Order: sequence, then structure tokens, then C-alpha cells
Amino acid sequence: MKVVIIGGGAGGMPTASNIRKIDKDIEITVITRDNYIAYSPCAIPYVLSNTIESFDDIVMKTPEDYKEKDIEVLTNSEVTDVDNDKKELTYTSEGEVKTMKYDKLVLATGGNSFIPPIPGADLDGVFKIRNINDGKKVKEWIKNCKNVVVTGAGLIGIEIAYAFKELGLNVTLNEMLPQIVPRSLDPDMAEIVTEYLKGEGLNIVLGKPITEIKGDGKVESVVVDSTDENPADMVILATGVRPELNLAEMIGCDIGRWAILVNDKMETSVKDVYAVGDCVESYDAILESNTISQLGTTAVRQAKTCAQTITGKKSKFNPVLNSMVTKVGKLEFGAVGLTTNFAQQNNIKTVSEKIEAFTRARYYPNAKPMDIKVICDADGKIIGCQIIAEERVAERIDTMTLAITEGLDCFDLSNMEFAYAPPVSMVTDPLVLAVDEVSKKFN
Amino acid sequence: MKVVIIGGGAGGMPTASNIRKIDKDIEITVITRDNYIAYSPCAIPYVLSNTIESFDDIVMKTPEDYKEKDIEVLTNSEVTDVDNDKKELTYTSEGEVKTMKYDKLVLATGGNSFIPPIPGADLDGVFKIRNINDGKKVKEWIKNCKNVVVTGAGLIGIEIAYAFKELGLNVTLNEMLPQIVPRSLDPDMAEIVTEYLKGEGLNIVLGKPITEIKGDGKVESVVVDSTDENPADMVILATGVRPELNLAEMIGCDIGRWAILVNDKMETSVKDVYAVGDCVESYDAILESNTISQLGTTAVRQAKTCAQTITGKKSKFNPVLNSMVTKVGKLEFGAVGLTTNFAQQNNIKTVSEKIEAFTRARYYPNAKPMDIKVICDADGKIIGCQIIAEERVAERIDTMTLAITEGLDCFDLSNMEFAYAPPVSMVTDPLVLAVDEVSKKFN
Repeated sequence: MKVVIIGGGAGGMPTASNIRKIDKDIEITVITRDNYIAYSPCAIPYVLSNTIESFDDIVMKTPEDYKEKDIEVLTNSEVTDVDNDKKELTYTSEGEVKTMKYDKLVLATGGNSFIPPIPGADLDGVFKIRNINDGKKVKEWIKNCKNVVVTGAGLIGIEIAYAFKELGLNVTLNEMLPQIVPRSLDPDMAEIVTEYLKGEGLNIVLGKPITEIKGDGKVESVVVDSTDENPADMVILATGVRPELNLAEMIGCDIGRWAILVNDKMETSVKDVYAVGDCVESYDAILESNTISQLGTTAVRQAKTCAQTITGKKSKFNPVLNSMVTKVGKLEFGAVGLTTNFAQQNNIKTVSEKIEAFTRARYYPNAKPMDIKVICDADGKIIGCQIIAEERVAERIDTMTLAITEGLDCFDLSNMEFAYAPPVSMVTDPLVLAVDEVSKKFN
Repeated sequence: MKVVIIGGGAGGMPTASNIRKIDKDIEITVITRDNYIAYSPCAIPYVLSNTIESFDDIVMKTPEDYKEKDIEVLTNSEVTDVDNDKKELTYTSEGEVKTMKYDKLVLATGGNSFIPPIPGADLDGVFKIRNINDGKKVKEWIKNCKNVVVTGAGLIGIEIAYAFKELGLNVTLNEMLPQIVPRSLDPDMAEIVTEYLKGEGLNIVLGKPITEIKGDGKVESVVVDSTDENPADMVILATGVRPELNLAEMIGCDIGRWAILVNDKMETSVKDVYAVGDCVESYDAILESNTISQLGTTAVRQAKTCAQTITGKKSKFNPVLNSMVTKVGKLEFGAVGLTTNFAQQNNIKTVSEKIEAFTRARYYPNAKPMDIKVICDADGKIIGCQIIAEERVAERIDTMTLAITEGLDCFDLSNMEFAYAPPVSMVTDPLVLAVDEVSKKFN
């Protein structure tokens, strides 16, 4: 059997590796447009800030490494046509057009940065940051910059803006919506992060779109809300990723509202064609409807499922909760499940509470404040949690992910056992303090 | 209604506070032998090491604070007799014998340090560390010490030994059993902590009991295994805590193998008498039989349940998993559920795997090694987990506590979503890497 995987990112490469771990004999070829494979795009902001020395450090493996595992990787190669009836695809590589037969095809085509229709978005000095090549261009350009504008205050936008701040630049983070991280944080929680970032010296402009980027060949200024013009040497568009669907459409895979439709085995609607990563839709565990989960972890987990399916093992990709975390400067923040707004938009009544606790026993040196918001539905079932602190956020998000997955309500979690020692936690865990506050609203 | 609570520790005081939170009218009196209340005994080692400045810092509340909440606290007072038929108790306070009526009685009598029958255990310079007064005596005595022996390598013993090491003393940690933390860690995991502690300069003697403490009035040397005599200026007995059962026996409460028997509402066998904390038995969630869970967190959670029961609210104390964590120096380690040995002693076949992962993305600065051991039963159901690393241990233990509580097997956890960002985790969480290794043994 021959498996061809299109795409060499967090969906494609782990699919290849996982198949090989299970089966020594399957022929595996990965075809990717990129010249780098198996790197962590999430790490690009940290290379920009010089926290990580070089882009080479975030490339975990080369095509040669995969060759040792008997996995063929064709970089700088683009698939241009797929004939799934004949099980044959056409691709260009080093200027040549070639064909390749396959038995099973995996679409791990990822997505492309969304470029908003702003006049001037094509000027030199306007960048997206999707892959290492983008990162390298930015790292070069930035050498001559003083004023930088990042538009889009999702995680990537914030991480990149903070990286530039660390380089000593004058940075403006611009977001069309009235708050940062609108997908994952409630306004009151987002406000805490916003205040921190302002305190670190970032200019934050909310609720106003960039309406024009001006310049003669290259960026010179940015106009916000049609009126407010400010000098800029560089603009970063961190305005989201759109699934790359060309090949899927060519093959005739069913496409949903946003991306390729797959079942929980990562099978598309077309026989012998599978899909994973940023180009597919996932199933939302709370809403019980499709969603889009463009996270590296989602891609990696889907790759595991896809490899199990292809090799005939038991496989199942679970519904997602889009748990996320990041750390900017000293501040770590994360979230899982639905925000209050998103729940209400989906006709779910919410009961929530936000508390302030500590990361260690109150009396223990360097105990840091921890803000926690827990969101329940009208029956007390936990449907979301958001946490901000200087330490110990990520794993609490994971505990809440499991709690939501298992359908726990705030009363269940209140009775749960938590490990305690003064240097690492409070005697009553902050999560319990939070759910206890929510519980009171049900009395 | 009048509730009298005997004991002012992590069981007694929270019972009082929780009752008051629910009901403004119940009369509440706490009677305690101690002169301090509402402090954290877990924090004593950190005061000894000067990490926390003073014993005053770990006292969270005074009797006056409770008075403001209309809770009467009698310190330095000892209950000597209880007549539950008459609902009347006798106590001594400031040399006077007094009586008090009650409607409901809560036994939060805690436990006493076990003093092993070692010749010389009564010499000056031999201490137990159970309460602040013990801590103060030790802090005074230590000023003239050079060589210190701590016997008993459970958490408290290790924390105290490390505290003395931080003061620059020559410290020997002695454990009768062949490994440290025998209740919570497997030998291979305990060995990692042992090596760390040795590297920090502690002398560790395992598998050999102290057979004699020698000295003329005060400690001068310690004899190990009847042969090996070493100089010592101080000996700390960290050899466990025995439940204080005198009053419970006097009242006629049913006593189990170790302590007072209570149901999941914290009711004893005697009407209107309740018990919480170190003096009661808990129910082990995995073994489905009674156990003893002498943890501050257990006492605090039982207090919550007890207050709910007394005030007529829905209440249920769940079976325990004895999750624990501590941090000594840079090293954090924790565990939940059964060790391999303990499982096998209880006729549970185990399948386990130990892996080494990282606390952050491999390429991210200061990523630390993380050792994880996951223990499953013969069906793959998770029954124990032990973790050691320099960061981010406690909350992963909590996630595993919830996983065990919910009856998850290693395959379930393998599919779980974890939050990821390079500065705070690996793209595939160490817990998933660990359960995946265990899973392989079931193929």
C-alpha cells in the first residue's frame, strides 16, 4: 500500500510518523510546497523576540531524518491535480511536472493567512506570519523598523506584538473587535490581559479597523477608522487563517461551512481520501455542531487518529473544546470551552463567576494573583473556563478540559481532590474556590 | 442549635466557618488544646528554613477574627469528658473545670505524632513537629546545632530535612524502609528524588532503623541498625501521626482499623456526633475499602461536607485518592492513586510505564526534564500516577486525579485535548506520551 500525504506541517508529518510507527511496510510519501517541514509555527514569535536563537532551532526534523524512517519527503513541490478514480496525482517539483500513484491520500493542506481587503495591504513591509519563510522576511525587515502595527489580537497577534516590544520597538496592537482574544476570553478577562500588555508598553487600539495602509512602495503609515493616521514601518496581518481547499474541491470532497468535512476517523466523503489539520472541520463537544479548531495540538491529534484509521486500527477523534494557552512576558493565560458571548449566541443560558485567588499559599513568598472565570449552563454544567496568572495556568486548563469532557457540573468539581503544598497551591484550589462561587448562584 | 467543635486545626476551623457561611443563627464554639488556631502545619518546614519569615505569618486567623463571625474559640482548653446522652461536655480552661451543653458535637481531634520505641527518644533535643509550638522549640534548639538527624522519609521528613540543609547544617535523613516516600512513590521514582536530595548535600540512609539515641540528658549521637553511631545535636521524629481517639472511644463511636468510622456525611455511629480530619477513616476510591488520608486538604474538604450535613444541606464526601505534592528546593514531585507495590499487595495486577518528557517545548529555553510514571490495572484503567519535575507537576496530578475519579483508561486519556504553547508545554502533553507508552503494552 502507498500513502501520499499532501502537506508537511503539524497534520502531515505526524500522520506519516504515526503510520510508520504502526506499520513498517506501507510506502509513505509527503509532498509539501514549503522548503521546511516538521517545525513549530507556534514558536515563530519567540524566534522573532530572540528568546529562541534561530529558526533552525524550531525545525525538529529534516527530510533526511524521515528518510531514515523510510518516509519520502518532497519539499518545494506542489500538487496541481488529483485523479482519485485513477489514484494518481500530478505535481511540480524543481520546474518539472511529475505524476505519482497512490492507494490512500491524506489532505493536510493547512490554510492560508487571510489578507483583509485593506488598501495598501500589498505594500512592501506588510507581512503575514504563517511559516518560517514569512518569519525570516520579517526578521530581516524589522532591522530598520521603529514603529510597528500588528492587526488582529488573537493569540498569534499578541505573541508577535509582544515579541516586537521586547526588541524595543514602538508597537501598536490593533483589533477591529472591542476586546482582545475575542474567541477565547470574556471581555472582563480580556481586560486583565489588555491592562498587562499596556503596562508592558504596548499601544492597544480596540474596536477600530485599519482602513488603509499608506506608503510609496513601502509602508509609511496606517490609518485607523478612516481618521487616525500614524507612522508605521511595518504592518503584520494576524487576521486569521482560511483553510486551503483547492485540492479537496477538485477531488470532490464534501465541504462544510468553513472547511473539509471529515468523520471521527478523519475520512472525507471520498473513498481513500483523508484530511487532517487546519483544513478540516471538527465537532464541538458542547455545541454538538461543527466548528473549526485551527490548533497545532488538534492537527497532531487528528494525525494520530488518521494513521490509526489508515492502518486499520481502532480510531476515534473526539469532539473538541479548543483549549488554548499562551504566555506573553510574565503573564500566562488560557481558556477552554465556550465564552459567555459565544454560548449566548448559541442560545445557551450561562451562569458564571470570576474570582481572584493565588497561585501558592497566601503566606508563601511570590504567591501571584490568579484570575479564574468559570462559565456554567443553566443546570450548573461547566461549559467554559478562563484563567490568567503568572504561573500554573496551562495544567489547570487541562483539568477543566477533562471536567467539561466528562460532563461535570460545578457541584461535582467542588468535591474534587486537589494536590496541595504551600509552595505550589492553595489549600483549597483556586478552581474549587471558583466553582464554589458559581455554585452559590444555584442556591 | 449549638454546635461544639473539638479541635482547631484544618478540620475544626473550616467546619466552624462553613457552618457560619450557611447559617447565621447556629451557635458555634470551638474548643482546642492548642494556643494557636487556623494555621497551616504544612508550612512549618518553610518557617524553619527561613523561606517564610515567622510563625506568625502562617497563622491565618486569631480567635478575635472568629469572634467577628460570631464563632467562639476557646484555646488552651481541653475536653476531658463527654456525656452525649445529656449532650454535655466537661473541659478544663485556665485551671478551671467547666461544662458546656451542645446539640451537635464535631470531633476534629486530629492526631499525635507517633513516637517510635527507641531508647533515648525522651532525651532533650529529640523533637516531633506537629504544631507551631513544636516548630518554635525546634527553631530555638537548632541555633546550637551542627549535626541533625531526621527519621522518617515521608513528605514532612523530607521537607524538614531539606529546610535544615538550607540552614547549612549537616543533615542525615533516615528511613527504615528501603526507599523514601514509600506510601506515594514507586522505588524507581523515589530514586530520582533521592539522587536529587543527595546532590543537594543531604545524607540519606535507607533500609536501616534508628536503634538508639544516645546522650547525657541531651542528644549526642544516633545509632543506626545497632552498629553505626554518628554524632547528632538534634533528632526529628517524622514517623507519622496516630489518630487521637480518646474522646471518640469515650463517647462510644465505632472505631475502624485505624480511626473513627464515619459515613460520607461525616456522621459517626453515634447520633449528633460528627468527625473530620486526621482522626477519621476515609474510603479509598480504587481499593473500595477504608484507608487513612491524613492530609490538610482532606480535612478541609471533610469540614465542608460536615458543615453541609449539620445545616441540613445536601452533602457527600467522595472516596479519596490521596493526591499529594511537594516542592523541595527546585524539585516538585507529586502522586495520586496507588503505587505499584500497594496495588499488588491488594491483589491488583498492574501494567505501568515510566517516561521522561519535558516541561516545555524541547527547543524552548529552560525546558526541564519531567519524569512521569503511569500505573494501570490489567484492563488499562488508570490507578496511579507519579510525576517529578522542576515545574508544573501539581496541576498534572490534579488532571490525573480527575481521570482516575472518572474511571478513565490509558486509551481514553490518550485522546484527550491538552492546552499547548511552547513556553508552557509540549505539543503532545507529557501525560499523553506516558499513557501512550502504557497503551503499547496492551497491543
